[in-house]
Amino acid sequence: MDLLLELKEIHKRTPSKILLVVLDGVGGLPREPGGPTELAAARTPNLDRLAAESALGLFTPVAPGIAPGSGPGHLAIFGYDPLKYRVGRGVLSALGLGVPLGPDDVAVRGNFATLNPDGTVKDRRAGRPPTEENRRVLAKLKAAISTIEDVRVELYTESEHRFALVLRGPGLGDRVTDTDPQVAGVPPRKAEPEDPADAGSAKTARILNRFAELAREVLKDEPVINGVLLRGASKRPDFPSLAEVAGLAPAAIASYPMYRGVAELVGMEALPLEEDEDDPDRPQAKLRALRAHWRAHDFFYLHFKKTDSKGEDGDFEGKVERIELFDRLLPELLALAPDVLLITGDHSTPAVYRAHSWHPVPVLLKGPYLRADAARRFTEDEAARGSLGSLLGPVLLPLMLAQAGKLQKYGA
Amino acid sequence: MDLLLELKEIHKRTPSKILLVVLDGVGGLPREPGGPTELAAARTPNLDRLAAESALGLFTPVAPGIAPGSGPGHLAIFGYDPLKYRVGRGVLSALGLGVPLGPDDVAVRGNFATLNPDGTVKDRRAGRPPTEENRRVLAKLKAAISTIEDVRVELYTESEHRFALVLRGPGLGDRVTDTDPQVAGVPPRKAEPEDPADAGSAKTARILNRFAELAREVLKDEPVINGVLLRGASKRPDFPSLAEVAGLAPAAIASYPMYRGVAELVGMEALPLEEDEDDPDRPQAKLRALRAHWRAHDFFYLHFKKTDSKGEDGDFEGKVERIELFDRLLPELLALAPDVLLITGDHSTPAVYRAHSWHPVPVLLKGPYLRADAARRFTEDEAARGSLGSLLGPVLLPLMLAQAGKLQKYGA
Repeated sequence: MDLLLELKEIHKRTPSKILLVVLDGVGGLPREPGGPTELAAARTPNLDRLAAESALGLFTPVAPGIAPGSGPGHLAIFGYDPLKYRVGRGVLSALGLGVPLGPDDVAVRGNFATLNPDGTVKDRRAGRPPTEENRRVLAKLKAAISTIEDVRVELYTESEHRFALVLRGPGLGDRVTDTDPQVAGVPPRKAEPEDPADAGSAKTARILNRFAELAREVLKDEPVINGVLLRGASKRPDFPSLAEVAGLAPAAIASYPMYRGVAELVGMEALPLEEDEDDPDRPQAKLRALRAHWRAHDFFYLHFKKTDSKGEDGDFEGKVERIELFDRLLPELLALAPDVLLITGDHSTPAVYRAHSWHPVPVLLKGPYLRADAARRFTEDEAARGSLGSLLGPVLLPLMLAQAGKLQKYGA
Repeated sequence: MDLLLELKEIHKRTPSKILLVVLDGVGGLPREPGGPTELAAARTPNLDRLAAESALGLFTPVAPGIAPGSGPGHLAIFGYDPLKYRVGRGVLSALGLGVPLGPDDVAVRGNFATLNPDGTVKDRRAGRPPTEENRRVLAKLKAAISTIEDVRVELYTESEHRFALVLRGPGLGDRVTDTDPQVAGVPPRKAEPEDPADAGSAKTARILNRFAELAREVLKDEPVINGVLLRGASKRPDFPSLAEVAGLAPAAIASYPMYRGVAELVGMEALPLEEDEDDPDRPQAKLRALRAHWRAHDFFYLHFKKTDSKGEDGDFEGKVERIELFDRLLPELLALAPDVLLITGDHSTPAVYRAHSWHPVPVLLKGPYLRADAARRFTEDEAARGSLGSLLGPVLLPLMLAQAGKLQKYGA
């Protein structure tokens, strides 16, 4: 069952405003048994004050034990069950690079690889080349390959061995198998349509195979990067929008392309942001954008990236600093007086784990209809005592809508 | 959605080792309001010490209010949603008796019944005869009926009125209705294929009807046990293995056939155990098997039965003793230094209830990535304060895999 689609029947439009803050990867772990997590170690007087008058809980975006990627984590926060609303790997790569995708375009995730003289795969990642090497080699491919049949071929460097390939042309399908064999010692596979009767996907497969052939030809004198492996051919998914399902006019305030892209998939308008060379996360520019567009929207998704980045770097203190930075911004968010404020993360990224983890993330919900709550701080162990309890899957959207007076009762 | 199948895409093999201990039916209830449960009454210094450095929670294998049988309870622990991964009643009977089933064999659950002279059912359980009576009468049937058409007919005493019937032969289906009418006063039904066009199931139905007819003939002079009722015709289900979905090389250490059988359904290797006439649960033999096979596997399911048996007997003190016995074994398990240790039950069997119950079971998880936890003992009320919260359905497998470093993130 899909709760999201039930909202279609019971939402109502009101002037109330919802502010959703995502502190990417904010959940953490202690550095030693019994020690504080990043959130517990941070000095956060403003968050503490807010937590004392809010409802808290612990949020598991996908399922216990599952560490969500940014796509699934955000979709769950936005109300979309990530086990149902799937985004292909190629599309996620394109979104992460800020490459716009039309409804008929096909995006593919590419790896540069090293092939043996006999055509078998020697290294699926070509020794993880520096990104500059990726750019140099990709420029050769771009110069040599711009169209195949009637399809435009676009290439974008991601990082190291990774690139994105975007096909734009008529009649392309995306039900296509990968050429990446996933192991070394065997030749790359041929792309094939999953259903031989699917002419569009057969065309995409033909073009991908031709591209791989041309790439091998162009790169034949390269000592390391002499082949490509392709996977995750996918079109931009056609999700119901938050306007359709919840009557919202939502805006996204995020600096990194991935998050702007995922927000756009659910029908948010990604607001323009000023540059800020001092801080690529642009917290001040985000606040200015929020204030400038406050009247035009009723739902704001405000994303801060660096809590996750510092966690991935294993930088406990750096993550603490980014939490404290957010705490200093908080009064300016509260000054806008949103009717409903929700603060959470899309997953945990404990500095000691240096990666996305499966541990539940604290949620703080401030709205007009709250019960008493024992949680006194926005930390993992205080949230475990909060009145929202354990929240699993795409349930935050209905909670925000309900507090904002935007939902009628379900059934008579 | 089936989380188990998602694991296929994100698991990775590592040398880390997982030890899963199932104390069958370990959850309990107080004997008087405010009193301790069996777990709370037990003296468990080793478990207490372990609990203080572990994460705890409460596990509901199927759903609130549902008391799981051993099959569904264990499947949920192993990661298989028991509402999706069904095991037929006939197969469960055969597994419980340790009868091996090939993929084409059909197992059926039989009841001895008393029939009236007019052919209607007088007593569906033939007055619950002593198991010795069952054996005596079954021997007559075995002597008279060994094949029907080209199908071998095997008969096994279960207990009281219950027996298992196994059919081995070519082309048998298992989509067959029961002959048990579920009420007295009417004749047994004829077995029929659910779909008349299903020739294999039509064959099975024909053989079951012929068997019932022959049994009546053979038993016509018996005063009480003079008929059979058949139900739950089923083949061994073809579940994806834990090797396929999670890349595991799992082993099962259990003394009772039912648990060995369910473990084999998910692809575990059931390790041989030495006999021990002093204790049919063979705790010392289990420890020896665990140590002997420790290097060859990366996942161990270790089952202890007697906590459940004592609960079913209504023997509160006996159950407490079995818990204390496990506590004394615990240091030997810890000495193996598993990377991840999970201790739970497949359901509660409170001595005051004398049966499987629906109450959640405590879970203890020890692994490298734990948050602070308020629970200080492995008891029901301490577990309710634990950091794992309430765990519903087949979520323990992903939690164990995640702690063992055997899962990549889900989605990019």
